[in-house]
Amino acid sequence: MTELIPAPRTFFWSAPGYQCVDEETTLDAGPGTEGVARWLRATVGAATGLPLPDGRDTENRIVLGIDPDLPAEGYRIVIDGFAPRIQGGSATGVFWGAQTFRQLLGPDAFRRAPVRPGQDWDLPQVTVEDSPRFPWRGLMLDVARHFMPKDGVLRYLGLMAAHKLNVLHFHLTDDQGWRVEIRKYPRLTEVGSWRARTKFGHRASPLWEEKPHGGYYTQDDIREIVAYAAERHITVVPEIDVPGHSQAAIAAYPELGNTDVIDTTSLTVWDTWGISANVLAPTDNTLRFYEGVFEELLDLFPSEFVHVGGDECLKDQWRQSPTAQARIKELGLAGEDELQAWFIGHFDNWLSARGR
Amino acid sequence: MTELIPAPRTFFWSAPGYQCVDEETTLDAGPGTEGVARWLRATVGAATGLPLPDGRDTENRIVLGIDPDLPAEGYRIVIDGFAPRIQGGSATGVFWGAQTFRQLLGPDAFRRAPVRPGQDWDLPQVTVEDSPRFPWRGLMLDVARHFMPKDGVLRYLGLMAAHKLNVLHFHLTDDQGWRVEIRKYPRLTEVGSWRARTKFGHRASPLWEEKPHGGYYTQDDIREIVAYAAERHITVVPEIDVPGHSQAAIAAYPELGNTDVIDTTSLTVWDTWGISANVLAPTDNTLRFYEGVFEELLDLFPSEFVHVGGDECLKDQWRQSPTAQARIKELGLAGEDELQAWFIGHFDNWLSARGR
Repeated sequence: MTELIPAPRTFFWSAPGYQCVDEETTLDAGPGTEGVARWLRATVGAATGLPLPDGRDTENRIVLGIDPDLPAEGYRIVIDGFAPRIQGGSATGVFWGAQTFRQLLGPDAFRRAPVRPGQDWDLPQVTVEDSPRFPWRGLMLDVARHFMPKDGVLRYLGLMAAHKLNVLHFHLTDDQGWRVEIRKYPRLTEVGSWRARTKFGHRASPLWEEKPHGGYYTQDDIREIVAYAAERHITVVPEIDVPGHSQAAIAAYPELGNTDVIDTTSLTVWDTWGISANVLAPTDNTLRFYEGVFEELLDLFPSEFVHVGGDECLKDQWRQSPTAQARIKELGLAGEDELQAWFIGHFDNWLSARGR
Repeated sequence: MTELIPAPRTFFWSAPGYQCVDEETTLDAGPGTEGVARWLRATVGAATGLPLPDGRDTENRIVLGIDPDLPAEGYRIVIDGFAPRIQGGSATGVFWGAQTFRQLLGPDAFRRAPVRPGQDWDLPQVTVEDSPRFPWRGLMLDVARHFMPKDGVLRYLGLMAAHKLNVLHFHLTDDQGWRVEIRKYPRLTEVGSWRARTKFGHRASPLWEEKPHGGYYTQDDIREIVAYAAERHITVVPEIDVPGHSQAAIAAYPELGNTDVIDTTSLTVWDTWGISANVLAPTDNTLRFYEGVFEELLDLFPSEFVHVGGDECLKDQWRQSPTAQARIKELGLAGEDELQAWFIGHFDNWLSARGR
C-alpha cells in the first residue's frame, strides 16, 4: 500500500486497483480552490508534463472543492474510478489534500520535469480522510549561523508543504550574522551580514574556515519568501534575537553594546560558536533602535506571532556595567535576571500594542 | 527605454505609453505554442500572481502564435494597445519571445511569488523583432571540480533561458570528481564522486579545506535535467573527459590507468588543481569500459553532440609504459601525441557510428 507522510487519520481502498490521470485530465476547481489548482498545475503539472487545464465537462477530471463540514485544515480524498475528489474544510484543507494527492502519484511527481515521458500516472483507488492534531506545525530554520540563499529557503518551504508543516520559524539574527535588510539601519547588513572566517567543527576545535561567509535577504526577498510561503499555507514567524545573541548587531552599531564595560567598537561579527558575552545594553537608545527594527519587520511579516529570542543572555557585562546597574536600581529590579525579563517584556508589550 | 538583454535586432515604440496585463488577461496559445503558454503561466504567473488562463474571447489576451515567415528561432513581439502578440518562426522562437516579454514586465517578473500584491503590470507599447546571430549559444558548467546540486543546475537552466542561451555544456567528469551514475560501473560514483579534502586557493597554496566534497546525479536526476532543459529549448551536451582528466575514474577502477608505470590502486580522487599525470591507459580494456559508459550516456542525452574532452593529456606515463609503447608501435604511430589523437578518434568514430 502506498506510504503517506505524515500518516493520515484514515486510509482505505475505495475499490481494488488503480486509475489514471493523463493528457486529457482537467481540473475542476470549485470556488476558493483556485490557488490549489494553480499549485497543482505548477508542481504536479511540471513533474508529469500533463497540462491539467480548467474544465468540468468530462468525467476525466480532478474535482477540488470546499466542504464546510470538514475541519478547516482537514481534507478528504476519494479515488474510486470516477472523478477523483479532493475536498477540504477550507482552501488550506484542500491544499493539504493536494499534498497527499501528489504523494499518491509516487516519487516521480516530486520532480520538476518528466523523467519518463509518456508514462502512466496511476492513482490507487483509495479514500483518505485526514486532519492535523496540532494547529502549529513548525520548523525552525537558522539562517543566521550560516546564510541560506533565497532559492534554498523557497525549496525548504516546498518541502515543508509536502510534509504539511505550516509555520516557518525564521531565525534571522544572531551573534554570527544579521540576515534581513533594515532600511533605517543599513550597517546591520553592510557590516552585520558577513564574518571574516568561521570556526570549523566544535568551538574547542583549532580549525578555521579561512574565508568570508555571509549574505542577507533584501526586503523584496523577504516579501517573496512570505508570499511564496502564504501560497503554500505556511506562516513565516520572524525572529530578531534580543538581548543576547546580538553580537552581529553590536559589531554594526557599537553603541548598542555595553560601552561602559568593553570597547564595543572592536567587536566583529562573531566567527566562532557558543554563547557570546557581548549582549545588548539595557538603554533607551537600544530599545528605540530595536523598535525601529521591529517597525520595518511588522511591515514585512503579517504573522500574528513575532519571536524576540530571549534566551542565553550572559550577565557578565551587565554585572560590571554602571549603566545596567543604574537601570536595575531605577526599575526596582532584583538583579540581572529580572533585567533580562524586563527587556523582553518591553518588546512583548510593544508588539502586543500593535496587535501581534 | 526598457533595457533588454541580449539586445534585440529591432526595438521601437509602437505607440506612446504602456498597457496592462491583469487578473482578466488570458493566454491565446496557437497550435504548437502550448509549451510556451505553460512556461509563461508557471513563471510569469507565479511572479505576478496572475492566473493567465486559456482563452481567446477577449481583447485582454496575450496571443502566442507561429509565423513560418520568421526565422525558426526568431520572434516578433507587438504591443500596441491591442492584444499583445508574441509570434515566432517555431515554438522555439515563440519561447525566446516569451523571455523578452518577461523582461518587458520588469525585474519583479523574475520572482517566484508576487512581492507587491495588486501591483499593475505595465507593458511598454513596443515592437521587438529579433533572431539570434549564432545557432549555438553555449555555456559550460563544470560540476566535476565542484559538485552543484540538481536544484542549482535547474536554476542555472532558467537563467540560461532568460539570456536566450541554448546549449548547456555539462562537464560531468574530471580528475576531481565523477558526477553521473553509470549503472554498469557503480564505483564511478561510489568512489569517484567524493574526495577527502580540497586544495583551497591556487594549487601552490598551502591551504586545504579539510572536509569531504562530492555528490553526483542519478540517472533520473539527469533525465529531469535534460527534460527541464528541453522545455526551455536548451540542449544538454554531456562531456565525459578522456584520456586525460580521468583520475577520478582511475581511483574507482585502477585497471583503467597505466598500471605498468605506477600503482594505480593507490590513487584517490584528486584533491588539488592543475593537470594530473594520471591518464587512461590506451588498452582495449579501457576502450571497452568507456564504450559502456557512453552507451548509458547516449540513452540519457538526446543531444546530437557528445563531448569527449581530449585536452591536457600529459604523456609522462605513456612514455614510460611498455603497454602504451607497444600500442604506438602496433598502430604505426609517430609517438604519444598521435596516440592521444588515436584515442579520441576511436570515440569520434564510435559516436558517429551511432548517429552522434
